[in-house]
Amino acid sequence: MTQKYHAQIYVTLRPSVLDPAGTAVKSGLSHLGYTNVDQVRIGKYVEVTLTADDETAARQQLDRICDELLANPVIENYRFDLTSV
Amino acid sequence: MTQKYHAQIYVTLRPSVLDPAGTAVKSGLSHLGYTNVDQVRIGKYVEVTLTADDETAARQQLDRICDELLANPVIENYRFDLTSV
Repeated sequence: MTQKYHAQIYVTLRPSVLDPAGTAVKSGLSHLGYTNVDQVRIGKYVEVTLTADDETAARQQLDRICDELLANPVIENYRFDLTSV
Repeated sequence: MTQKYHAQIYVTLRPSVLDPAGTAVKSGLSHLGYTNVDQVRIGKYVEVTLTADDETAARQQLDRICDELLANPVIENYRFDLTSV
């Protein structure tokens, strides 16, 4: 029996990798008057709905999906929350 | 006294708005053999560190930051989690 799952995937740059887009947003916020913002880091957020036999299978598949397509493991980390729906 | 806060901001397309990037990822996953993926929606994930007087002030400022710069309220929703660090 298959079950439907909803995954919220967060892809972030590794801490050692520079984030020029985040720096640009921080600069923009500073120009808008938000000078109390210390740091901005920009990542990706992906919501995926999929069917799988069980939660273990869903997690294994999501790991492969992230490694192969959604994240660049050289410069990015990912994590995800999984809920059955 | 000011306190340092860490915010995790999620910007997502409104449900009624088409997501061509998400559709492209779903198609890519299908070509890679992941035919059990039903839906993919792509959003933005932003981590912000800021100092504020208290949590209420931090939340108000983050609402303004999201409305003014990070999200397009016509087509996007946002939400954020706030933790003091």
